[in-house]
Amino acid sequence: MPSSSLILSRRDLDFLLNEWLDVESLTKRARFTEHSRETFDAVLDLAEQIATEHFAPHNRKADENEPRMVDGKVQLIPEVAEALTVFAEAGLMAGEFDEEFGGMQLPHVVGQAVFAWFKAANVGTSAYPFLTMGNARLLLAHGSREQIDTYVAPEIEGRWFGTMALSEPQAGSSLSDITTKAVPQDDGTYRLTGNKMWISGGDHELTENIVHLVLAKIPGGPPGVKGISLFIVPKFLVNADGSLGERNDVVLAGLNHKMGYRGTTNTLLNFGEGVHTPGGRAGAVGYLVGEQHRGLTYMFHMMNEARIGVGMGATVLGYTGYLHALEYARTRTQGRPPAGKDPATPMVPIVEHADVRRMLLAAKSYAEGGLALGLYCARLVDEEQTAETADERARAHLLLEMLTPIAKAWPSQWGPVADDLAIQVHGGYGYTRDYPVEQFYRDNRLNPIHEGTQGVQSLDLLGRKVVMQGGAGLALLGETITATTARAAGTQWAGFAADLDAAVARLASVTATLWGAGDPDVTLANSHVYLEAAGHLVVAWLWLEQALAAEAGTTDFHEGKRAAARYFWRWELPRTRAWFDLLESLDRTVLDTRDAWL
Amino acid sequence: MPSSSLILSRRDLDFLLNEWLDVESLTKRARFTEHSRETFDAVLDLAEQIATEHFAPHNRKADENEPRMVDGKVQLIPEVAEALTVFAEAGLMAGEFDEEFGGMQLPHVVGQAVFAWFKAANVGTSAYPFLTMGNARLLLAHGSREQIDTYVAPEIEGRWFGTMALSEPQAGSSLSDITTKAVPQDDGTYRLTGNKMWISGGDHELTENIVHLVLAKIPGGPPGVKGISLFIVPKFLVNADGSLGERNDVVLAGLNHKMGYRGTTNTLLNFGEGVHTPGGRAGAVGYLVGEQHRGLTYMFHMMNEARIGVGMGATVLGYTGYLHALEYARTRTQGRPPAGKDPATPMVPIVEHADVRRMLLAAKSYAEGGLALGLYCARLVDEEQTAETADERARAHLLLEMLTPIAKAWPSQWGPVADDLAIQVHGGYGYTRDYPVEQFYRDNRLNPIHEGTQGVQSLDLLGRKVVMQGGAGLALLGETITATTARAAGTQWAGFAADLDAAVARLASVTATLWGAGDPDVTLANSHVYLEAAGHLVVAWLWLEQALAAEAGTTDFHEGKRAAARYFWRWELPRTRAWFDLLESLDRTVLDTRDAWL
Repeated sequence: MPSSSLILSRRDLDFLLNEWLDVESLTKRARFTEHSRETFDAVLDLAEQIATEHFAPHNRKADENEPRMVDGKVQLIPEVAEALTVFAEAGLMAGEFDEEFGGMQLPHVVGQAVFAWFKAANVGTSAYPFLTMGNARLLLAHGSREQIDTYVAPEIEGRWFGTMALSEPQAGSSLSDITTKAVPQDDGTYRLTGNKMWISGGDHELTENIVHLVLAKIPGGPPGVKGISLFIVPKFLVNADGSLGERNDVVLAGLNHKMGYRGTTNTLLNFGEGVHTPGGRAGAVGYLVGEQHRGLTYMFHMMNEARIGVGMGATVLGYTGYLHALEYARTRTQGRPPAGKDPATPMVPIVEHADVRRMLLAAKSYAEGGLALGLYCARLVDEEQTAETADERARAHLLLEMLTPIAKAWPSQWGPVADDLAIQVHGGYGYTRDYPVEQFYRDNRLNPIHEGTQGVQSLDLLGRKVVMQGGAGLALLGETITATTARAAGTQWAGFAADLDAAVARLASVTATLWGAGDPDVTLANSHVYLEAAGHLVVAWLWLEQALAAEAGTTDFHEGKRAAARYFWRWELPRTRAWFDLLESLDRTVLDTRDAWL
Repeated sequence: MPSSSLILSRRDLDFLLNEWLDVESLTKRARFTEHSRETFDAVLDLAEQIATEHFAPHNRKADENEPRMVDGKVQLIPEVAEALTVFAEAGLMAGEFDEEFGGMQLPHVVGQAVFAWFKAANVGTSAYPFLTMGNARLLLAHGSREQIDTYVAPEIEGRWFGTMALSEPQAGSSLSDITTKAVPQDDGTYRLTGNKMWISGGDHELTENIVHLVLAKIPGGPPGVKGISLFIVPKFLVNADGSLGERNDVVLAGLNHKMGYRGTTNTLLNFGEGVHTPGGRAGAVGYLVGEQHRGLTYMFHMMNEARIGVGMGATVLGYTGYLHALEYARTRTQGRPPAGKDPATPMVPIVEHADVRRMLLAAKSYAEGGLALGLYCARLVDEEQTAETADERARAHLLLEMLTPIAKAWPSQWGPVADDLAIQVHGGYGYTRDYPVEQFYRDNRLNPIHEGTQGVQSLDLLGRKVVMQGGAGLALLGETITATTARAAGTQWAGFAADLDAAVARLASVTATLWGAGDPDVTLANSHVYLEAAGHLVVAWLWLEQALAAEAGTTDFHEGKRAAARYFWRWELPRTRAWFDLLESLDRTVLDTRDAWL
């Protein structure tokens, strides 16, 4: 069994939650009064223990033994069901939900820290509860009371799992082009027909029912995304007393075989193919969630949380890679430092080599920086929902909107880099399947793709978020960062703060230049560079935040925070300059390159 | 069968070899007088055909069916032996070798272009001839006439394969710490005992014999690398008539299971374990190559070529990824451009999206830039060996010494980025094993590790190459680059040339600053950044070279060269500024970070 200290750093979580984000202060709010530092610690202890004992041990086995289709059913290694039973029985599926559903009413920021243990220990197995919790949250926000009672309660108990079924083979990033049809019936239900692709947890025998949340178009509706509605399509229809009824017409059409994330069943599902005929008729039975044609808006509720969750997953996969590399670097001996190359002296642990330390420090700055970003955003979710004044809640909402594409994309870019560095630190050994880092690297490669590619995030940030409400989100981000830099005056971090202030000003002026171009093609041509620059700026800010929070600390841990903050300031923040220069020049290289020249 | 146009671009090879490097001019030299543009073209045609028909088709199958050890023997899928037989029977193993050995006496630059087809089509299977050819070249340079007759001739015929056995479980980057022992015998032979790790092609049934080139220490020799000698240790001893004799005591102790490169048998070999007792005595029989204690020098002959070869492999794996992504981007439709978002209009091929074009253009610039670098270096090998005057040969040698760490490390860093982008262009499909790009990505991850890690290359460049002969290599590189920039005067590339000139001056001043620090720990602390900066500078120069060579061309192909050159100038060259700034500041962040803080 891997040591928990190789999965995630409890010390760092304690620092981020308590020394930095002051989560204990949340216990003063009505929703969290039953909680205390002690209850938060207890659930983190529990998560660490269960992740270590029940999730991490089968991470490699699940990778080597992908889900298989046998007689139309999905066969998984038994450890997956065992782990998820322990998870649900410990009440962790219910962690953040209301007490009325048997939940703990944990703050989202604590819930995210709790769940981070499972993603880091075994991203494949943890996908089932991840999707189920998101599904349940969406229904709580937009479903009817009856839908909540019928579907959400069993999800929170862990008896049923949920999915989100958006993509189709011909429509991934372009959801406006889905063709799954939902035809209204006289009894108020709908009948769905169509094919959905990339559906994680789309079929399995882990739970007795699966609650699919499906995007489909009602004939006659408006074109594009404005004609998309959201439906509950359960694998088995549910009787009035909650017992399972007829098999719905949702059929497993195939399993996708990926480079990583192999523990998660990923499916192609056919709806209404006629394999089953619930109620004696054709079509998969679906129940409309909320109003017609508002499906994408509802789904984005789930999607925005899922995006921050994907970013957290990318970060913690990088984090566990970093921890494994650090352990290896402290125990593997090889060579000698430049100043003492006498072959008669013993070899040193490779952590003594500057270039290995560089890789570890970089990986640390990406992993811990991404974790700070994810938890900061989770804290904003709590502010958005429970802050005292409407103004505070609105500000939290606005800042969260701004940060969401970054919280998804930045860790999805740099978490894999941490795993890449972790392999490199291991040398040839890290490239073998005898060490876990190669799996982290393969698993993490999915994160820049699912829940909106990096390109989609970049258009969201530059095309929507920075211009929404007349640029209020961008202004708020700037104010929030400069409030931090102001606190750095007179400290050893004044230089870092000055560089950050300059970068914030640059972001504003570059944004103005881009939107002043008068041609959206030109404005958006280099949106990915904009996303990279904004992301590095934001994470640099969160490193300054961490440095200030660690300033009084005298332990090695606090020294480490300062070292990583210095690294990010001196090595990473300067990258933004070239990106801003390019953006400011309204560079047309990409735009002017024709397909035929490639 | 994949189309050859997805493996590599013959058009680009023609451009690089003929429109740029003028390989035809080599046919005026004594060694190549039998050759002409037509013979070069013919062998390139042959390579393209065999790579397409015999190597590419089993690339995925070999990945999915790794070598297995059955009854102590290595079992491979039959396609590997078939492909290698076709390869050898076509005379391609002999391509660059002397006519006296049945070779074609191809220039190295043509030989590298030929072999690029095989690496791009199937890097796993091509490793066997790659190692064998390197082994044969080393023996031709340093072996005795008898050794050449006995071992090299069967290698060139493809009847025997060769290996290079350097690493040991405890000694990879640090070769001074190998412990394999070679004890001299009365008959002039040696008996070897020890364990070698990561030996590619270390055992198999593809050929009747395997010629291991083994580094070992003769007891009583000097410590460290000065006490390393090189030995031929054949799997089967060879009788005077060339027939196979007794089994030598080289025993397959295990197979390594890697993330990629799975088609290449990678082994742990035990020498002199006592499983076999050739001549009735203990120890594996070895034959000294050249003189005692000069083994590492000889091995570096092979290693330097291998490093450029590894760089070529990394490049062409990125290249084939790029070509697959381009094909996908032209056929997959999704979404609409910003200016025309009407959902009633049909979706466009994704190559129409600016961000997809950015990814393709970046991948093109890395793949084609790396290929230019590899072929330029191969051309230098020809200059080094066949240029008319001793001075020209010496200059070529010096420049090649300078460029070797870059030719290994730069494509090993950026080739994998091309494959990463190729996955991203494919979206979710690229992450599945139904598309080949995920394999290219896994395969390519080895290249920054083997034949000297990126860290080892960075120390070679900054610690040795730029200071050798009083900095003559660095000066020559600078002169060579500025000779190119001078040719750009008055063209549309004058701005690119000016930026390159500035970067060259910066490289010189930063090098002086680093070596003026007076403390090798400080000088070398950030050597990886130095390697990255120098690499980007060199490839930018080769893009200017390509732009100038393409200047008169009016085809889409030539437009593409100009587009990629502009991309590299505007998007990539500016990265060097931040790197140079960091180096110039003699940044101590990494150096001052203690192990305990990580």
